[in-house]
Amino acid sequence: MIVLRRLLGDVLRQHRSRQGRTLRQVSGEARVSLGYISEIERGQKEASSEMLTALCEALAVPLSAVLREVSDRLALEEARDGRRLAVAQSAERRLSVAAEPVPLPGEQAGAVRPGDVVAAA
Amino acid sequence: MIVLRRLLGDVLRQHRSRQGRTLRQVSGEARVSLGYISEIERGQKEASSEMLTALCEALAVPLSAVLREVSDRLALEEARDGRRLAVAQSAERRLSVAAEPVPLPGEQAGAVRPGDVVAAA
Repeated sequence: MIVLRRLLGDVLRQHRSRQGRTLRQVSGEARVSLGYISEIERGQKEASSEMLTALCEALAVPLSAVLREVSDRLALEEARDGRRLAVAQSAERRLSVAAEPVPLPGEQAGAVRPGDVVAAA
Repeated sequence: MIVLRRLLGDVLRQHRSRQGRTLRQVSGEARVSLGYISEIERGQKEASSEMLTALCEALAVPLSAVLREVSDRLALEEARDGRRLAVAQSAERRLSVAAEPVPLPGEQAGAVRPGDVVAAA
């Protein structure tokens, strides 16, 4: 599963690194404990709205810009996930078609819809 | 202060309303308690990454799309806040200039930079 707080942490850490600032500096300016910021950056803690606002102010980055970056990365990962799902479903379909008896003329083969759980033969 | 969770709640509620779905329906599908979803929609509770993912899946909206909408609204509010701040600073500057003695020729009036706290006379 794509975890939002991981992407958010990545974006925040990149902004800090690009500015050449340490966790300690940002922690002092945002008045947020160093350990908490570190956990947020590593995607281990959810950041509250107030915390995010304070961090973005300390980094001098609009929160809207950070969210947009997160949204862009998420869209990429969603697209990748969608492709993985489609490939898995197509493999399932092939397996299920191979396992089914050949339909007699006039009969219709059991349709497998995307998302159906089909046991491999 | 602009509160992120309020904007997020607004966007989520609008998606649900546009689909003509009740809190109960979405709650059942997302397997999240009705009260919790209601608090998230009203901006009273922070939603965890997992909760947001479950809600977006129940609403059949990509989380990236929801975040983008939130980012767009936030950018508008940030711009509005920026204008309010600029107007307040300009008023402060006028007050401080009026309160200062007229500089003698060759002297420089005390410069007031944006962000300086200037007491009204």
